[in-house]
Amino acid sequence: MSGSIYGTLFRISTWGESHGKGVGVTIDGCPSGISLCEEDVQKDLDKRKPGQSPFSTPRKEKDEVEILSGIFEGKTTGTPIAMIVRNTNQRSYDYTEISKIYRPGHTDYTYDQKYGFRDYRGGGRSSGRETTARVAAGAVAKKILSEIGIKITGYTSSIGPIKVNKDHFKEEEIWNNFLSMPDVEAVKLAEEYLTKLKEQGNSSGGSIECIVSGMPSGLGEPVFDKLDANLAKGLMSVGAVKAIEIGAGIEVATKTGIENNDFYQYQEDGRIIKESNNAGGIIGGISDGSDIFLKVYIKPTPSIEMTQRAVNKNGENVEINVEGRHDPIIVPRAVIVVEAMVALTLVDMLLINMSTKMDNVLKVYNKD
Amino acid sequence: MSGSIYGTLFRISTWGESHGKGVGVTIDGCPSGISLCEEDVQKDLDKRKPGQSPFSTPRKEKDEVEILSGIFEGKTTGTPIAMIVRNTNQRSYDYTEISKIYRPGHTDYTYDQKYGFRDYRGGGRSSGRETTARVAAGAVAKKILSEIGIKITGYTSSIGPIKVNKDHFKEEEIWNNFLSMPDVEAVKLAEEYLTKLKEQGNSSGGSIECIVSGMPSGLGEPVFDKLDANLAKGLMSVGAVKAIEIGAGIEVATKTGIENNDFYQYQEDGRIIKESNNAGGIIGGISDGSDIFLKVYIKPTPSIEMTQRAVNKNGENVEINVEGRHDPIIVPRAVIVVEAMVALTLVDMLLINMSTKMDNVLKVYNKD
Amino acid sequence: MSGSIYGTLFRISTWGESHGKGVGVTIDGCPSGISLCEEDVQKDLDKRKPGQSPFSTPRKEKDEVEILSGIFEGKTTGTPIAMIVRNTNQRSYDYTEISKIYRPGHTDYTYDQKYGFRDYRGGGRSSGRETTARVAAGAVAKKILSEIGIKITGYTSSIGPIKVNKDHFKEEEIWNNFLSMPDVEAVKLAEEYLTKLKEQGNSSGGSIECIVSGMPSGLGEPVFDKLDANLAKGLMSVGAVKAIEIGAGIEVATKTGIENNDFYQYQEDGRIIKESNNAGGIIGGISDGSDIFLKVYIKPTPSIEMTQRAVNKNGENVEINVEGRHDPIIVPRAVIVVEAMVALTLVDMLLINMSTKMDNVLKVYNKD
Amino acid sequence: MSGSIYGTLFRISTWGESHGKGVGVTIDGCPSGISLCEEDVQKDLDKRKPGQSPFSTPRKEKDEVEILSGIFEGKTTGTPIAMIVRNTNQRSYDYTEISKIYRPGHTDYTYDQKYGFRDYRGGGRSSGRETTARVAAGAVAKKILSEIGIKITGYTSSIGPIKVNKDHFKEEEIWNNFLSMPDVEAVKLAEEYLTKLKEQGNSSGGSIECIVSGMPSGLGEPVFDKLDANLAKGLMSVGAVKAIEIGAGIEVATKTGIENNDFYQYQEDGRIIKESNNAGGIIGGISDGSDIFLKVYIKPTPSIEMTQRAVNKNGENVEINVEGRHDPIIVPRAVIVVEAMVALTLVDMLLINMSTKMDNVLKVYNKD
Repeated sequence: MSGSIYGTLFRISTWGESHGKGVGVTIDGCPSGISLCEEDVQKDLDKRKPGQSPFSTPRKEKDEVEILSGIFEGKTTGTPIAMIVRNTNQRSYDYTEISKIYRPGHTDYTYDQKYGFRDYRGGGRSSGRETTARVAAGAVAKKILSEIGIKITGYTSSIGPIKVNKDHFKEEEIWNNFLSMPDVEAVKLAEEYLTKLKEQGNSSGGSIECIVSGMPSGLGEPVFDKLDANLAKGLMSVGAVKAIEIGAGIEVATKTGIENNDFYQYQEDGRIIKESNNAGGIIGGISDGSDIFLKVYIKPTPSIEMTQRAVNKNGENVEINVEGRHDPIIVPRAVIVVEAMVALTLVDMLLINMSTKMDNVLKVYNKD
Repeated sequence: MSGSIYGTLFRISTWGESHGKGVGVTIDGCPSGISLCEEDVQKDLDKRKPGQSPFSTPRKEKDEVEILSGIFEGKTTGTPIAMIVRNTNQRSYDYTEISKIYRPGHTDYTYDQKYGFRDYRGGGRSSGRETTARVAAGAVAKKILSEIGIKITGYTSSIGPIKVNKDHFKEEEIWNNFLSMPDVEAVKLAEEYLTKLKEQGNSSGGSIECIVSGMPSGLGEPVFDKLDANLAKGLMSVGAVKAIEIGAGIEVATKTGIENNDFYQYQEDGRIIKESNNAGGIIGGISDGSDIFLKVYIKPTPSIEMTQRAVNKNGENVEINVEGRHDPIIVPRAVIVVEAMVALTLVDMLLINMSTKMDNVLKVYNKD
Repeated sequence: MSGSIYGTLFRISTWGESHGKGVGVTIDGCPSGISLCEEDVQKDLDKRKPGQSPFSTPRKEKDEVEILSGIFEGKTTGTPIAMIVRNTNQRSYDYTEISKIYRPGHTDYTYDQKYGFRDYRGGGRSSGRETTARVAAGAVAKKILSEIGIKITGYTSSIGPIKVNKDHFKEEEIWNNFLSMPDVEAVKLAEEYLTKLKEQGNSSGGSIECIVSGMPSGLGEPVFDKLDANLAKGLMSVGAVKAIEIGAGIEVATKTGIENNDFYQYQEDGRIIKESNNAGGIIGGISDGSDIFLKVYIKPTPSIEMTQRAVNKNGENVEINVEGRHDPIIVPRAVIVVEAMVALTLVDMLLINMSTKMDNVLKVYNKD
Repeated sequence: MSGSIYGTLFRISTWGESHGKGVGVTIDGCPSGISLCEEDVQKDLDKRKPGQSPFSTPRKEKDEVEILSGIFEGKTTGTPIAMIVRNTNQRSYDYTEISKIYRPGHTDYTYDQKYGFRDYRGGGRSSGRETTARVAAGAVAKKILSEIGIKITGYTSSIGPIKVNKDHFKEEEIWNNFLSMPDVEAVKLAEEYLTKLKEQGNSSGGSIECIVSGMPSGLGEPVFDKLDANLAKGLMSVGAVKAIEIGAGIEVATKTGIENNDFYQYQEDGRIIKESNNAGGIIGGISDGSDIFLKVYIKPTPSIEMTQRAVNKNGENVEINVEGRHDPIIVPRAVIVVEAMVALTLVDMLLINMSTKMDNVLKVYNKD
């Protein structure tokens, strides 16, 4: 097992390296009868692709997806959907030096320890380029969710010390700026902050928030496959994520029971709502029908053009100063990746939940 | 799938409810030849069992484990190890009222939504009693880890506003007080805090930190089965956990690259170490051989004896004030559960990693 | 992984040895809302239990099942159903000799090779006693199938050279005789045959046929999880099975296309039927709605009281003559085991198939 | 789940249709450090590719494999290996008629029942063309097995009534004739038989035998993941297979215990051998170190140019006579597919078995 398959019923299998022939994904378990074309996938890929902002890597990739299977007459057939994005802009580069050094914050050392050697060109399999495949699959997952009425909204919530002000929140701004931020004032401050870091050859961390609306209740399986447990896995599997919160997150630790419990009340239309949402839409690992709220914290890009202490394979301590085409901030490009992982996890739990009630089994087999 | 199986090679399957006949676990995939007896398991169960502290539920359970299979002449045979802990102290109780109400912070509503009805006695399957099975299995996992030299140390790091002071840290204190805290001064303050909350019928949240030492490098599978991704799943699957950090955690979001990168250097003995450990021992989802550091944040017990707004199944808004045998704080009893989930996840990744290098395959089959 | 978990959505986890404390099974993923009591399970266990026939082991076991979890007010809750059958009649026996010998046809040698040592008492985990757990879980699976209208009928189709004559087939006879044969004349001949073998201390092989009626079409997943592929796995996992046929089975190899193809025609009620059923109800790995027909071939019990050549652990060739309580024929007791494996596999495929069409997803989430 | 992923640690994910852009496979979990190039894979694909024989479909496909990822400097990196074979010779064809008819022996009806519609061009996903991906992955599996000394030899053992005579067996003939038969006299007779059938527009079934030599003992997991159980699944998942035998197969049913038991004896070199091999190299689901012997029975190609009764989607009974490019016999081309499934299953069990003994764990982590 090399860890590149995700899901139980809606399963994706990804492959590809930064400087290989491309990256790709095969979806096994997409239900039949869903309208799907390359444009559905391309529009999410375009939100992730590099070379669009002064704050992302200047590497130019068109990131054009080709669907290779699983669609017939514009609809999913129920059999595997394979997609490929060819690499076109791997810069020729002399890797002689880098191949012998373990860079701080990079996977050079751990891959060598695990596998005995590594594809050192651009990070190989550990490159952020791998997330292209997640985004492609995520776009398909979103199509399914949208038929149920589920919508996922991710955005950059902070960059270094600059935080989005909830009072300025405008959803329509998210994809209007280079930083995927829903607050135009925060964007201005963050751009200044990043410009300064970029001049130093330094980089910045940040955070991403994600809201899921239109959720049915009942998704998530008790004990180990709780909805939040599987979301946590999916999100922590994104390269640079180092912390995850659901609902009130770390604040629950300093709250008391009476402060943290979300009281219920009936709406006039007979629906049950909660007066607050510290739970973030998930109780006991099962969705309660209110919005899911989650947040991830992302470390600064390890690739910086500053002098660092490192080691080489000859047993020597060395100083390095890595040049290359890197993002001073990866957070804005990771927003669509976070959305993808949430979508992929939700679709899987949605399908798994179908068989948990005998009533549903009878409904599908027309025996009710 | 109802989510009660965990792991790929070292797989546990758990069962049981708060007020049923007991709880149990079957381990499928424990390697053969490990010394194991009931006492090995009992000593971890004793750290979790209720009724030992003024701050935990007064329910008295001996939590005596019986090993039913998989051991022969004191050693694991490689076949399934089944363990059972019988419930003995389910208080008789009139559930008529509770069966019709959805209590804030409890799983009453979500279980009914998912399954159509629920075992409402003491929370049924969603009770914290379920974690007994995790702890039993975790004790077996720890035996395996200890043979490799891996040690897991968890402790309460905060209760409400009271935090452990790292300068006062004494590992030997952890199991010396009711709160599983390694700082005697923090214990005193926390006891005062909890006593006050208890008088009000209120409860407190808190946090747990966990350190894993003696780690081999190379554990964790790229992309989706990263070591931190699987740890995040395991930990978030513990009932009340609402946030998880690995290494520097949420702080990485406000750091710059030069601050966050951990520089390498060679030790005199030829080993590579990192000057800092913001990564928390995991880079690119793979262990780097330094200590793993992680932290979870736990919500306050939802069971409080204070008036709350809730709803009943007749479509009415009601006020409730739940009595029962509940913990004003569950954090101290959750420490051993956190250790168990870390142990279970690490053993699984340890076994999975064995086959990732052809050199290892040849070593096992004596072809090198 | 030690191979004792079966299924994807309807997952069973079994444990237990011949001479340990008992055997058991936990079902994870049984839909909620199904009526279930111990009697439902006991009636299948009673068909398997030893000591009922002159041709099965004289070991007396009541094989009384206890359901430990997952039922509330007579219905499945959707959470794990744990069941245990305690061993009560392990005869005390001197295993000194047997522990050092590798008996022909037994697992002594392969278990030692795999695990380094073995529980040699009565075959340990490799004992046929393990199938008790399959039968218990299978009984639950049958309850689900029966709500959909699916019925499974297994029977002994041959014992040694004695074959059931299809013209004499009487379903009601199957559980009326010691040999689970639907043909009273064949029973008589088989009893004579077995009596003679028993006197010699020898044993007999045989075959079991199984018919599944009331099948919905559409079960089975393309390529690797074909319905017949998963049935083949489930059936071949029963200890002594050495061959499996679906539909016309081995005869297809000598047929031509025109002979083997099953022609379709419309019934007057608009249903499509096939004029023949060489396919055995499965085409391209997917059920076609006609009866499933399958057959397994079972080797003779290896435990015989005749002199055989064997080896011991001291490096010596030896002659052995094993005494013990063994079945001269295990086929009749395996009928209910075959039914159980078919039921377990079908339920799993039934639940998996629910999510393969978007129409079904919409139906369950009330969006159609 | 649509069933196109196979394996636990060595996992393959396949995709592609007969008349789509191509077929492909991604291997997740191939150990690092194995020499691998496209030629290693191509030589197995060449044994399967169509258009080489008077008895296989005249469709011309070069079946050229492109490796897209997972190789660096000629060696596997341990990360996913993606391979693609583009379709180049899909004949343009008028499918108007075929799209409305359910042909006997084909998957038209079952796919429509399962998915609501189907890609009817050349069978879509249910086409034998899907096996290209299995063969490509199987070639990689064989590279691993060969490093352990395991060799797989498959061959056509019968075509219709013509059987290979064991006395004429010549391994070197297998790939010397169009029919993959190791007996030149049988080849002659079979060619005559097939020529006659072809003139009629009819087709033939047949059988394939497969021998695995150089097996280590200990592979296979007790109870459900027995080695023979997983082999049975893998083999039955090949489209046209309708029966499977391990070792003595169906003959065990008419044998007595004394006839069927394989006696052990020590060789002069201290190795244990069996005097016979009715077990086919597997006892209790675990390899015993002797050769594995298995046999599959394959139905005649359903595509025949003869008049058959069928139904259409308008509710009418019709007569059809399908023209197309089909194989009068698929058995010879399936030999390499059988080998592939055996190789894929064995590698997976080989890797899984590594962690079943604590001794092995310690060996890999250098603690012994």
